[in-house]
Amino acid sequence: MRAQLLTIGDELLIGQTTNTNAAWLGEELSQMGVTMERTVTVGDDASAIQSEMDRAYRTARLVIVTGGLGPTHDDLTREAVAEYFEAPLHSDDEIFARIRRYYEHRNRQMPEAAAKLAQVPEGFAVLDNPVGAAVGLWHEDADRLLAVLPGIPQEMKGIFRAAVRPRLDGQTDLHEVIHRTLVTSGIGESSLQERLGALDDVLDAHTHLAYLPSTSGVRLRLTATTNGEPNAETRLDRLEAHIRERAGEHVIGEGDVTLEEVLGDHLRAEGRTIASAESATGGLIGHRLTEVSGSSDYYVGSVVAYANRVKQDVLDVGAEALRTDGAVSEAVAVQMAQGVRRVLDADVGVATTGIAGPTGGTPEKPVGTVWIGYADATQCRAVRRQYVEDRTLNKELFASAALDLARREQGR
Amino acid sequence: MRAQLLTIGDELLIGQTTNTNAAWLGEELSQMGVTMERTVTVGDDASAIQSEMDRAYRTARLVIVTGGLGPTHDDLTREAVAEYFEAPLHSDDEIFARIRRYYEHRNRQMPEAAAKLAQVPEGFAVLDNPVGAAVGLWHEDADRLLAVLPGIPQEMKGIFRAAVRPRLDGQTDLHEVIHRTLVTSGIGESSLQERLGALDDVLDAHTHLAYLPSTSGVRLRLTATTNGEPNAETRLDRLEAHIRERAGEHVIGEGDVTLEEVLGDHLRAEGRTIASAESATGGLIGHRLTEVSGSSDYYVGSVVAYANRVKQDVLDVGAEALRTDGAVSEAVAVQMAQGVRRVLDADVGVATTGIAGPTGGTPEKPVGTVWIGYADATQCRAVRRQYVEDRTLNKELFASAALDLARREQGR
Repeated sequence: MRAQLLTIGDELLIGQTTNTNAAWLGEELSQMGVTMERTVTVGDDASAIQSEMDRAYRTARLVIVTGGLGPTHDDLTREAVAEYFEAPLHSDDEIFARIRRYYEHRNRQMPEAAAKLAQVPEGFAVLDNPVGAAVGLWHEDADRLLAVLPGIPQEMKGIFRAAVRPRLDGQTDLHEVIHRTLVTSGIGESSLQERLGALDDVLDAHTHLAYLPSTSGVRLRLTATTNGEPNAETRLDRLEAHIRERAGEHVIGEGDVTLEEVLGDHLRAEGRTIASAESATGGLIGHRLTEVSGSSDYYVGSVVAYANRVKQDVLDVGAEALRTDGAVSEAVAVQMAQGVRRVLDADVGVATTGIAGPTGGTPEKPVGTVWIGYADATQCRAVRRQYVEDRTLNKELFASAALDLARREQGR
Repeated sequence: MRAQLLTIGDELLIGQTTNTNAAWLGEELSQMGVTMERTVTVGDDASAIQSEMDRAYRTARLVIVTGGLGPTHDDLTREAVAEYFEAPLHSDDEIFARIRRYYEHRNRQMPEAAAKLAQVPEGFAVLDNPVGAAVGLWHEDADRLLAVLPGIPQEMKGIFRAAVRPRLDGQTDLHEVIHRTLVTSGIGESSLQERLGALDDVLDAHTHLAYLPSTSGVRLRLTATTNGEPNAETRLDRLEAHIRERAGEHVIGEGDVTLEEVLGDHLRAEGRTIASAESATGGLIGHRLTEVSGSSDYYVGSVVAYANRVKQDVLDVGAEALRTDGAVSEAVAVQMAQGVRRVLDADVGVATTGIAGPTGGTPEKPVGTVWIGYADATQCRAVRRQYVEDRTLNKELFASAALDLARREQGR
C-alpha cells in the first residue's frame, strides 16, 4: 500500500513548529508495511489544501491529512475536504453532546466555536479521539482510504492508534517492504562505502541500502520490497551478512540503539565502571552517557578540566607535559585518562583534549585536532583525530570518538 | 518573494529522521521576508525528485532543495537536478583539490566516491561549505532562484548562512516585514502569556507576537508588516516596551543570544569565574557553557558527581546530609555548589541534584524534581523545581534552571 501525507498549518511553514507528526506517522506506517512516498506541507489556505488534496488523492491508495481541524477561524481543513468531496457538512448530535460533556467535565462553558468540532461531511465516518475533544474523519471507497486527523501530536497519535491503525490492519495490500537498520560507529560515510565495496551481488531492484550519517555514526538502512518478489528476508540476510563481514567491529548494533547504550551494555556485562576527563568536550561525554536510563550502574562521573590548573590540581597532569607538549597532546590525554580513573576510582577512564574552534588553532594543531585518551587496569594510550572547523560539530565528533574508543576496548 | 522547499531522503519519509531542516529554513526565510508557501518531501528516487522539482520550479520564485548531495549511490539529487536542467555535469578542479586537501588534512586517503562531490552541473555556481566537504549549488535567472544544499543540518545551515542568505539579501522583492526577537529565561510559556496580559493595545492586524518555546526559555518574535502601513518601527517599539515592562528580569536579550552567552557576558564583565557540580545533568551545564567560543575566560570546569561517593570524596558533601536528607535535597545541592567552588577554585559554583527519570521517583520526590544549588563569596542557597516525566527534557530543563539562577545572581 502506498501512502501520501498532507500536513497543514502556517506554523509548520514558518518553522514555529517542527513537523514531528510526519516523522511519527512515517515510522508507524512503514512499520505496518505501508510505503510512504511523499509528504506535503501547506498553510491554512483552503485552495492550497484542496489542490494538494486532489494531487495526493489521485495517486495514492491511502491519504492522511493532519492539522486545521480545530475550532478557530484559521482552521479550514474540514470545510476544504467537504468541498473537495462535494459533501455537505452536518452537525453530529452524538459528537456535539460529547463535546459539551468534555467542557462540563472541566467546569468550563463550551465555547460557541467548539460547535464546529461536531461537523461531519456526508459519507464520512467519525474516528473517536481518546485524548481530546476533536474527532478525526474517515472516508473509504474501493480504491481510496482517507484519514483526516487533528494536528496536535497527542490527539493525532491517540486517534491513529485507536481508530486508524485497526482500519488499516484490515487491508489486504500491506507489507510491501521490510526494513532493517544496522548502526555503525567510528567510520565516516565515504570510508564505510569504500569498505563495503561493490554491492552488485547483494543489491538489486528490490533490495536497497541507504546511508544515514550523523555525528555519532552512520546508520545503514536495508530495505527489501516483497510484492511478488520472493525471499525478501533472505535477500536482507545476505545484504546484512555482507555488511557485517566488511564493516567488522564498526557495526555496533541494530535498530535505534545508540553508541552510548552499546558501551553501557559492555561495561555492565563486564561489571566495569567508567569516568571521563573532559577538556574540549566540556561535559558532553558525561551528558551523553547519562542520556541512558540506568547509566548509574556503570557511570561514576566526570571531571571537566577546562582550565589547565584543573588538569594539574584535580587530575594530577604533570606541569612538565603541559609545558613541553602543550595541553593538546598525547601525554596530557593519557595522563587525564589515568588521573580521572584514579581520582574517581573507576575501572575505565576516557579523556579528550583538543581545539574545538573557531579560534585557538595553529599550523601544527589546527582547529578540529583532538587527542583521545584511554586508560584501564592493564593499558593506557591515546589516539589523535582531525575533524572540522565548526565548534559544535567538533565537540560532538570528539565525544563520539572517545565513546567509540572506549566501546572497542570493552568489546575485546 | 515566494519560496518552496523540496527535502529529499527516504529517512524523512519513514520517520527515521525528523525534518528539522524544513523548520529551520522556514524560520530563517520568514525572518528575511520570504513567504514559504509549501514544502514537499520525497524519497531518494530520481523521477520523484524531478517531478517535484518541476512543480516547485514552475510556481515559486525561490526553490530550495536539501538532501541527496552526498557521495554514495543513493544520493541522486545532483544527477536529477542536472538532468532536469539538461546541464551536463563536469568535475570542478578547485572543489576536487579542496576535497583532496580535506582528506589529506585528516591523514586519510580520499575515497573514490568522494570525487562525485566535485561534480557541478553546467551553468550552476558553487556555494562554499564552511563546515564540511560537500558544496551547495546555485542557479539563477531572471525569474527563478534555486539553491541545492546537503541534508546534514550543520552543513545545510553553514552554507545557507555563508552563501545563500547574502545572495537573497540582494533581491528586491523581499516582503516588507520587520522582526525583533526578545529572549526570555526562567519562565514557561503559559506563565509568560499570563504576565503579558491583554495585548489589545499593542497588537493589531499588522503587528504580531509569536511564542517560541524551547527547553532553554521562550523566545518572543515580534513582527510588523510595513507594506503601505506606516510606523512599523514605532509599533514594534510599543510592543517591546510593553513586554519588557511586564516580563521584567525574565527578558535576557535580543536576537539569537543564548542564556549561556548572557551569563558568560555577566561573568566576564565582573571578572568572575564559574564551575559546576552536576549530578542529574551529567555534564550538560559544562557542555552548554562551553558551546560559547571564548568561555575559557570565565569557565573553569565541572565535577560530574553521578555516584554519591564522588559527591563525598571529590566535593566534600557530608555523609550525614546524604543519609538524612538524601542526595536530592537542599543541603546536598548547597554543599555541592560550595564544594566545586572550593575544589576548582572558582568565584561562583552552581549545582544540580535531581531525578531525571524515568525511574527513581518517590511520592515526596517524583520524577522531575531537582534542587539547584548556588554559591559565591557572599552567599549560598538552593531552590527546588519540579519539571516533567521525560529524562532528556528534564536534563535540559534542570541545566537551564541552573544557568538562569547563576545569571540572575550575576545580574544584580
